[in-house]
Amino acid sequence: MELQDAIHQAVLGELQEHGYAALSMDGVASRAQTGKATLYRRWPSKLELVVDAFKHSAPDTKPPADSGDLREELLAVLRHEADSLDGASGAAARGLMAELVRTPELARVVRPFLADPFLAPMMEVLRRAAVRGEIPVAALTPRIAAVGPDIVRQHAMINGTPVPPEVLVEVVDDVVLPLLRGIGIART
Amino acid sequence: MELQDAIHQAVLGELQEHGYAALSMDGVASRAQTGKATLYRRWPSKLELVVDAFKHSAPDTKPPADSGDLREELLAVLRHEADSLDGASGAAARGLMAELVRTPELARVVRPFLADPFLAPMMEVLRRAAVRGEIPVAALTPRIAAVGPDIVRQHAMINGTPVPPEVLVEVVDDVVLPLLRGIGIART
Repeated sequence: MELQDAIHQAVLGELQEHGYAALSMDGVASRAQTGKATLYRRWPSKLELVVDAFKHSAPDTKPPADSGDLREELLAVLRHEADSLDGASGAAARGLMAELVRTPELARVVRPFLADPFLAPMMEVLRRAAVRGEIPVAALTPRIAAVGPDIVRQHAMINGTPVPPEVLVEVVDDVVLPLLRGIGIART
Repeated sequence: MELQDAIHQAVLGELQEHGYAALSMDGVASRAQTGKATLYRRWPSKLELVVDAFKHSAPDTKPPADSGDLREELLAVLRHEADSLDGASGAAARGLMAELVRTPELARVVRPFLADPFLAPMMEVLRRAAVRGEIPVAALTPRIAAVGPDIVRQHAMINGTPVPPEVLVEVVDDVVLPLLRGIGIART
């Protein structure tokens, strides 16, 4: 493991064990078996260090292959998200989310530096459908793209993981697709 | 403060400080300044005690007054939810959510006993709109009723509180209302 990975893992471990308020450069350095000077050379404070660790713990989120099938691609993005939150590989993401919930002041400070990692692939899936003429261009907003990922993340946070496959199907068939059909229809 | 309230507050305090795994009947008893026997007389184990404390920390959620205006009532429910998560009065709810995220095994155990407190008022608002003929009866499902509350709770958990009023307006105007319009429209 490279030193940088060891440092990021140490940050997440310290966060999970002690929380943000009690996290110290000393604690991270000793957990990563390096010196405090090494940390300060790269990160001026624990805020930068934590933001950087969060960014590196985000899953790699490429959009699914272009299948020409909107429903299939929506499901693929949500399945990828559900997988990224589950099991040992999702521990870092869950720990980060717990820390954000537990420490609203941390959420306010680090949030501007963090994006929903599933927003970009979702926007790409919607963009393809708009190009095919299946959904209106008005549907291409971050708020609408975030609906599926938000509901799946909320389910994982409140109900625990794994998110059952039938929940993903329900979110796509009963929420995201009807929403996309309803956009642009005049209010009655 | 009644003894039962003191015990519930002690449970939430112990959870926030030590987490579910480390929570003990002893710790709760001493924090609530009562005896362990008193606890065991009512709650056979810490699971029952925690579930009960969670239930009592849930906000009182009556549906908004029947105004005949769907958009206004949707906003009222989400505003109530946002308020219930904010400030000192929302601390118990936030602490509970943090604990669920941090401890997926706790989420799995207590979730069947806990309901989204804003589902019932949201269902009532949708029911009134269906009776007025404004939305299809097919919209009266828990999954659809939960969309607004889920997105608002997710926003509070990830971005911190308070949830800005313009976010509530966006959720209603750009997500919930278009979704309700799109339900029942044949897939194109």
